[in-house]
Amino acid sequence: MASFFLLKILNMKAIVKSIIGILFLTLIACNPKAETTVESENIDPLPSWNEGATKQSILDYVGKVTNPKNEHFIPIKDRIATFDNDGNLWSEQPAYFQLFFAIDRVKAMASEHPEWKNEQPFKAVLENDMDELKKQGEHGLIQLVMTTHAGNTTKEFETDVKDWIATAKHPTKNVSYDKLVYQPMLELLQYLRVNNFKTYIVSGGGVDFMRAFVTPIYGIPSEQIIGSRIKTAFDYNDGNPKIVRLPALDFIDDKDGKPLNIQKIIGKKPVFSSGNSDGDLQMMQWTASNKYKSFMLYVHHTDSIREWAYDRDSHIGRLDKGLDQAKKDGWTIIDMEKDWRIIYPFDNYRDELK
Amino acid sequence: MASFFLLKILNMKAIVKSIIGILFLTLIACNPKAETTVESENIDPLPSWNEGATKQSILDYVGKVTNPKNEHFIPIKDRIATFDNDGNLWSEQPAYFQLFFAIDRVKAMASEHPEWKNEQPFKAVLENDMDELKKQGEHGLIQLVMTTHAGNTTKEFETDVKDWIATAKHPTKNVSYDKLVYQPMLELLQYLRVNNFKTYIVSGGGVDFMRAFVTPIYGIPSEQIIGSRIKTAFDYNDGNPKIVRLPALDFIDDKDGKPLNIQKIIGKKPVFSSGNSDGDLQMMQWTASNKYKSFMLYVHHTDSIREWAYDRDSHIGRLDKGLDQAKKDGWTIIDMEKDWRIIYPFDNYRDELK
Repeated sequence: MASFFLLKILNMKAIVKSIIGILFLTLIACNPKAETTVESENIDPLPSWNEGATKQSILDYVGKVTNPKNEHFIPIKDRIATFDNDGNLWSEQPAYFQLFFAIDRVKAMASEHPEWKNEQPFKAVLENDMDELKKQGEHGLIQLVMTTHAGNTTKEFETDVKDWIATAKHPTKNVSYDKLVYQPMLELLQYLRVNNFKTYIVSGGGVDFMRAFVTPIYGIPSEQIIGSRIKTAFDYNDGNPKIVRLPALDFIDDKDGKPLNIQKIIGKKPVFSSGNSDGDLQMMQWTASNKYKSFMLYVHHTDSIREWAYDRDSHIGRLDKGLDQAKKDGWTIIDMEKDWRIIYPFDNYRDELK
Repeated sequence: MASFFLLKILNMKAIVKSIIGILFLTLIACNPKAETTVESENIDPLPSWNEGATKQSILDYVGKVTNPKNEHFIPIKDRIATFDNDGNLWSEQPAYFQLFFAIDRVKAMASEHPEWKNEQPFKAVLENDMDELKKQGEHGLIQLVMTTHAGNTTKEFETDVKDWIATAKHPTKNVSYDKLVYQPMLELLQYLRVNNFKTYIVSGGGVDFMRAFVTPIYGIPSEQIIGSRIKTAFDYNDGNPKIVRLPALDFIDDKDGKPLNIQKIIGKKPVFSSGNSDGDLQMMQWTASNKYKSFMLYVHHTDSIREWAYDRDSHIGRLDKGLDQAKKDGWTIIDMEKDWRIIYPFDNYRDELK
């Protein structure tokens, strides 16, 4: 909770702006005398985005599809927005943050698994060999994460993750991982929700890992978080039922798995999708085929100073085919260095200290 | 659409009452001068339920858990209500309605599958042998349904179901299947939603079958419909992507599968569950273990005149262990004959004709 409150304080400026916007809309909704056209230009819903074509394309899209008089109007029930998480809502370097959680678990469990000394990807973890770990690819990483997350109940696992996020620090940024979320994306999520979009996370990361802490940060409830899963079993346990996590993959929510899981769980095609890697490409393609006007948004990591710069050759968050298709089909590409005034919520705080 | 409008007209009385209730609550929410205690006793949210212990237990529960001053108050975000579908929201005799849809498909596909003449459960379908089909059990029925629903896209399947529901008639009731929903349960769903419960279907039936038509009937959007699934594949299809339905079971949402799927998809334990068979028992047990005060509701089919009467020995919707545990643990059991003033929405219309 401490980190959540700190985040809130650091992010107060953006939150106050959001609250003003929400109160404003509520007053309009409740006051029968309110005008339908109002002077709302003063409230910038995306204050951490620099002015330019990227920001304007988002504002234009939302303006069009929420205007009942516009030919591109989308009914509220169909305003489904899906966001990748790693590298899209928070950072993913030098490795997926869930991996750092898994590393702590592997080291703790290693004495019970002597075979891990000679078995990848466990060997790399135990030898602190991050380069080798990257070579194992996303599938290997997910396998490692899932395997090390099993053998306990869903409730116990949730507690483990909560404890970890409250204490662990990022190896180079030296802040807790949940502070490395992108302030511009927090604003975008909120802007979409104020405009009656239902915001979902659709991530290759573990669904129960994310659910343990992201709701208060992103404002997204557990039932709108979709991710990779391990298999589970129900145990009645003499009237104290529990769900036990089994050491076997159930579903990898990446690449083809993203549109498949969206169809399985949501049952509607998104109108807005945001991602940062080739693992999001099929979700983008699925969204682009919506009968409604849709919006595809790629985060391009171009900021080697404030965040990281990587794309076609990265072992994590590789953006290659997706970048080509985005350019070819005119999808919106965020140039992180140019389009984002700040990256993390605590950057806002730094600005004010100047 | 025709059947939907007819349903609405037949059900106008209940709908008008609901609208009055919603408008009333909206006015209270928007009017800063509104009293917090109001004279709302005149509006019966469950007009198709006879007065008695069953109806009162529902009203008492909702009254308690939505009152911030009550020790059993539940925050809105945790008001998750899960409803079985077959035999719980609509009838399921003489066989699951989805089976009648499947029968039409099996007969149409039989010429391409000569092996079905000697292979259960297909043999029983082709010979119109309903007794044999019942003996194949719920697993066999789901297998039949899933197998016969594959080989097309999600979009094509949706169209098939919509066409079927618009034209097919129940073999003995001689009305379209979507008219055989339980009016008291429609009122209960709406009553819970007005009290900020999020209502879900959690059914052994196929999720895409239900999604094709139940939303306007139950008021439950596709993303709150959970059911059994077959496997699917994503096909980019040169820029016109489609999701293809494969002839293989992915997940049976029955018995243990219900709490497992609830955890996978919702990620929260329900506070309110409603079912009618032993296939719902694990969902009930999971709900009963909630840290919040929870409510477990079993529909007991006791009305051989207006609906059907069956429980411990039925091949469909068997209620045996569930009935024992409900009695032992004091869960609420609906005696359909005594507790429901009417069964189907069109019964309301019959009353008014008298």
